[in-house]
Amino acid sequence: MERIEEMDWNIRKKGHDHEEITWSGNRFLTGNGYMGIRGTLEEYRKEQLAAVNLAGIYDKVGDGWREPLNAPNGLYTYLKVDGIQYRLPEKEPLKHECELDYRHGFFRRKTLWRTPRGNVTVRSERFADAANVHRIGMRYTVTADFHAEVEIITGIDGDVWDIHGPHYDAIEFQEKDGVLSAEAITHEKGDSVWVSERCTWNFPAEVKLKQEEKAILRRIIFVTDGDTDYIVDKWVSVYTSADIDSNEKSCLTDGYEEAKKKHMDCWEKRWEHSEVYIEGDDAAMEALNYSLYHLHCIAPRHKEGLSIAARGLSGQTYKGAVFWDTEMFMLDFFLDTEPEVAKSLMKYRIDTLSGAREKAKQYGYEGAFYAWESQEGGFDACSDYNVTDVFTGRPMRTFFRDKQYHISAAVVYGIMRYTEMTGDYSLLRAGGAETVLECAKFYHSLLYKKVGGERYEILDCIGPDEYHERINNNGYTNRMAKYTFESAVKTLKLLMEEKPGDYKEEADLLSLEAKYKDAAEKIYIPQPDENGIIEQFEGYSNLENVTVKEVRKRLLHEKEYWGGAYGIASHTKVIKQADVVTWLNLFPEDFSTDILEKNWNYYEPRTEHGSSLSACMYAILACRLGMPEKAYPFFLKSAAADLAGGGKEWAGLVYIGGTHPAAAGGAYMTAVKGFAGVYIENGTVKVKPHLPDTWRKMRFQIHYLGKEYRIEITKDETSVLPM
Amino acid sequence: MERIEEMDWNIRKKGHDHEEITWSGNRFLTGNGYMGIRGTLEEYRKEQLAAVNLAGIYDKVGDGWREPLNAPNGLYTYLKVDGIQYRLPEKEPLKHECELDYRHGFFRRKTLWRTPRGNVTVRSERFADAANVHRIGMRYTVTADFHAEVEIITGIDGDVWDIHGPHYDAIEFQEKDGVLSAEAITHEKGDSVWVSERCTWNFPAEVKLKQEEKAILRRIIFVTDGDTDYIVDKWVSVYTSADIDSNEKSCLTDGYEEAKKKHMDCWEKRWEHSEVYIEGDDAAMEALNYSLYHLHCIAPRHKEGLSIAARGLSGQTYKGAVFWDTEMFMLDFFLDTEPEVAKSLMKYRIDTLSGAREKAKQYGYEGAFYAWESQEGGFDACSDYNVTDVFTGRPMRTFFRDKQYHISAAVVYGIMRYTEMTGDYSLLRAGGAETVLECAKFYHSLLYKKVGGERYEILDCIGPDEYHERINNNGYTNRMAKYTFESAVKTLKLLMEEKPGDYKEEADLLSLEAKYKDAAEKIYIPQPDENGIIEQFEGYSNLENVTVKEVRKRLLHEKEYWGGAYGIASHTKVIKQADVVTWLNLFPEDFSTDILEKNWNYYEPRTEHGSSLSACMYAILACRLGMPEKAYPFFLKSAAADLAGGGKEWAGLVYIGGTHPAAAGGAYMTAVKGFAGVYIENGTVKVKPHLPDTWRKMRFQIHYLGKEYRIEITKDETSVLPM
Repeated sequence: MERIEEMDWNIRKKGHDHEEITWSGNRFLTGNGYMGIRGTLEEYRKEQLAAVNLAGIYDKVGDGWREPLNAPNGLYTYLKVDGIQYRLPEKEPLKHECELDYRHGFFRRKTLWRTPRGNVTVRSERFADAANVHRIGMRYTVTADFHAEVEIITGIDGDVWDIHGPHYDAIEFQEKDGVLSAEAITHEKGDSVWVSERCTWNFPAEVKLKQEEKAILRRIIFVTDGDTDYIVDKWVSVYTSADIDSNEKSCLTDGYEEAKKKHMDCWEKRWEHSEVYIEGDDAAMEALNYSLYHLHCIAPRHKEGLSIAARGLSGQTYKGAVFWDTEMFMLDFFLDTEPEVAKSLMKYRIDTLSGAREKAKQYGYEGAFYAWESQEGGFDACSDYNVTDVFTGRPMRTFFRDKQYHISAAVVYGIMRYTEMTGDYSLLRAGGAETVLECAKFYHSLLYKKVGGERYEILDCIGPDEYHERINNNGYTNRMAKYTFESAVKTLKLLMEEKPGDYKEEADLLSLEAKYKDAAEKIYIPQPDENGIIEQFEGYSNLENVTVKEVRKRLLHEKEYWGGAYGIASHTKVIKQADVVTWLNLFPEDFSTDILEKNWNYYEPRTEHGSSLSACMYAILACRLGMPEKAYPFFLKSAAADLAGGGKEWAGLVYIGGTHPAAAGGAYMTAVKGFAGVYIENGTVKVKPHLPDTWRKMRFQIHYLGKEYRIEITKDETSVLPM
Repeated sequence: MERIEEMDWNIRKKGHDHEEITWSGNRFLTGNGYMGIRGTLEEYRKEQLAAVNLAGIYDKVGDGWREPLNAPNGLYTYLKVDGIQYRLPEKEPLKHECELDYRHGFFRRKTLWRTPRGNVTVRSERFADAANVHRIGMRYTVTADFHAEVEIITGIDGDVWDIHGPHYDAIEFQEKDGVLSAEAITHEKGDSVWVSERCTWNFPAEVKLKQEEKAILRRIIFVTDGDTDYIVDKWVSVYTSADIDSNEKSCLTDGYEEAKKKHMDCWEKRWEHSEVYIEGDDAAMEALNYSLYHLHCIAPRHKEGLSIAARGLSGQTYKGAVFWDTEMFMLDFFLDTEPEVAKSLMKYRIDTLSGAREKAKQYGYEGAFYAWESQEGGFDACSDYNVTDVFTGRPMRTFFRDKQYHISAAVVYGIMRYTEMTGDYSLLRAGGAETVLECAKFYHSLLYKKVGGERYEILDCIGPDEYHERINNNGYTNRMAKYTFESAVKTLKLLMEEKPGDYKEEADLLSLEAKYKDAAEKIYIPQPDENGIIEQFEGYSNLENVTVKEVRKRLLHEKEYWGGAYGIASHTKVIKQADVVTWLNLFPEDFSTDILEKNWNYYEPRTEHGSSLSACMYAILACRLGMPEKAYPFFLKSAAADLAGGGKEWAGLVYIGGTHPAAAGGAYMTAVKGFAGVYIENGTVKVKPHLPDTWRKMRFQIHYLGKEYRIEITKDETSVLPM
């Protein structure tokens, strides 16, 4: 597919706004799955949240949270003119502009400062190399309209931004043959992070080494002739001791334009399979494809069994941990456009089964209880005290870790979805089946029944709506447990057909099958009441019936936590995010359209949408109900989560900002499953579109059972064509 | 038994301390079961918490708590000398002294003021008539050492102290034939409270009526001759429309000395059966008998089926509600000394069975779930928001009402204890058996079991230690449920023997018997771990192991609540009060002495004793373990709870002050069951004393199976003699 010509695939921001430094870091992010480079300027330091955030490697210091590493910043560069530093945010420029080419993953800046003797301009361009994930390329250009005495100071800044750091016990700097390097040693496990840097420049200059306590820099000193572009090309390489296959750790340089070309080719290839064309609504098309850009930036392509963190590679928030976001909100995009990535994501869960087993055991359950905030090895980074009380400054006991049982079902959902959408059973064979069965075992070990009663119940849990803790029989959780039991039964049938070695006796398999069939039948699934409303959990209907607006008025502190035992939402019907509606989205066949609609109408006004996972669930269901106009604002909210900013940045006193890949994935699902109405029936890709009024045409591709289909939808006709 | 001559049965307080006004109101309380008169001065008004608190009649205004009524204050009296008011706390006296004769229930005060022209002295004496519970007698004496122009202003003050009032929508005042009267109409139900007052005096005086908006008063005006005692005798009568047998409501007057004599005779009769003599420790003897005085003051003798509130008749705190305190801490005293009162207390529970049934139904359970804070009809006054957060001023959701399941077992315990100690089966026949069975039904409807598991569990409850909410398998609660099942089985056997009409079919009874036998066998009872420690509830052993002192240091606000979801104790091993130890006290035969001792030693240092119910449980068990010296300080703490003051007056922002009858009952139990070591074996009263070192002798009586026994214990010998 050729590039969408109606779009210029660029976002630009003119002027420098101090208030937007943090947010811009997310908005202008570049990344290649191995690392994410915050959209900060070269001269920024930790105070401006400059960071090269690394995937899948973590560290913990003292009582602080375990979180991913930010590498020593090899991009660090600033300018002196006539002996004076010209850098943001300290020195106000005359003109300033940033740009993100999200077609190809380039961040650019252009800044003009007025100096006492004339004007000096800095332009830069950088990319997280898609062709070689250990590499960052950057071109830094200085121009002055007078004979300026210029000094470009560039090298590696080891004074990195950390939330719960410092994570490096020591950083060793070195210069050898013009290559600057830093080896940083982590606190917890003594891992190494190696950053090396080499520069080339197209002009004569004096060069001096400048070693500081936490940085190694070089000064490139020259006098401008009032006309020339003074260009420094900079190559930064990053490795860690967790990259077991890369003990080479050399600094990879290249011709800048040549490397750029290879990088762009990678991006073009991605877009071939993933861009979504929307005719009649450029804003929506841009926001959506910008969202997909973010998913591409963080997709783990370089390593099998790596997953995606809830805030992508935008920093250490949410501990760089993998949440249910991945399976429930991001997986579909990769299943449709790049199934190998989807497989890698699910492989991560299979690889971390032992961690999930350990967690189950720790809480006295059987089987696999997946981490709510999963780090490497399935380690659950979720703390028992995950929120800080704004009134007392005390940590608040939360139950995300111990009671958000639905995470294991999300893993099952991902594995089954992968298998069903790709027709590739290798994942099931390579641990997937075991994972599904272990999750079923887990849910079975949760089940209680009243003495003398019949139905099976899940007690004392948290559903997707985290504002209501320690509830009984959450509809979503119970339904997902049922799904898990059913998936186990399916998997057992498969195992019996294949007769693998793990479960030697067919009798064992049959007895397991009977056990999970029984559980799937008897687990209590809340049913609609006389008004058609499904109670989110037992007792929900007795809670105070107030509007979100009314509840918001009760805030005494803007950052106070709405949930917990005494939060302003906890004893009301106000919920954080789609809960029943998420269930209805996943299993719409459970009820009639009338019931789906009644529940959409009931729950939507009671939903704060305090999570970026919420809007898209309402959007997709609205489409199914033939209400694309109601869906549209939710779609746009999801698609523009990182473009427009304004998301929730605080949970109690805990900073939770960063990019929102789940919202990006949700926007994608809304477009494809919602507006385009793609669904599978009897092994065939079908569409039942509900386009918003202004949308004249949609075009995109999806994969199904190993084939790729191009889908085109107009107001009058639809086509699903194999490519 | 003659009066203990070693004691003068008086407590005295010299001087007037503004800080002690509230506490003195409790300490100098008089009462007759129908009403409690706070130990406040005649001139005190609501600001000083003057109150005549009524038993068993309640009112609720708006969103405020439902609480008992304070009657219009018929004792109200103050003094003018030469046109100037002499009253406390406004006018500092030269001398002031208060006295409580707790042998006979007289409150006395003597106050000397210096006036510009000379000294004037007020003496008063009052008693809540034990011979006629509707009546208060008071003698008010003025003496001046000069020719003072004196005015005694006396009548009825309708401006009563209320915590969640005002409870009277209107008060109508009247004067007729020298009798002042007030009819106050309650807000909620339109009940009437009638107070009437008549005075006589022994000197010529001018009398004028003085009607105010909220008071009706008379001015008794005279000039003193510098020598004479000017005596006003005042009779106050109180009735309410809830006293169905008293539509007479006349003002009962009498000769003061004659009435006083009758009143004292009543008290002497009580002490005949209840005083506890301790040789060698006057302080302990005084504190203990003072405690028993309080129990006598609030014992409901005038009406069948009335119980005792947690703060007795000392005011509206704790909503004037009946808690498990009555059955578990006060009942034993009455069983031993006045079984008819014990019967009345249990009759109250039988009479409120319908309320308990309704409550069970409300929460989706079967049988009878007794009110945590029981008012008339078994109405549960406990709010879902029973504590106020000091940091936000917001009400905190508490679970006392919905999850403190052990209350129903306390009722069963009371009924069974009454039956076993008296041999009187009439209570069982008159609804007691039904009550026991309904409570068993309730616990059965609570039981859960794991799917595939065997043991029966009680989930999501609160035990006696209220600092840990929403816990699973609290040892105390489960053990009490087992006791209830066992009691139901016993009761069913009895019913089958008697074949009453209620349970027509023996087959039904047999099937019920099987059901409760099964439940009693399978309910999970936590057992000692490898160190002999019984886990208070599941997960307790994983909580932070800190001292009470350490936890106290974490307070940010002196009134903050230690419990709830985020209280400073909630996530530590620090507990509010005896929990496992209460269980071990009730069922010591469950474990070896070694286990009892290990648990005493383990839990005591972790107990805040933040409830007046705690100390005595540790004291009694310590005696059983042969550690009377360890028991002694806990005993004294219980016995002196109201004498010494200093108890907890706040739970969050909620005032919880007042008298502590449960501590009084606990002190009694410690003396008799603990130090004296009274127990029943094979239908015989036995003793196994553990006297503190200084105690040379104990002497008291108890009732058992309709007989009264005098028990004498010295270091060398013991005797149990029927009287």
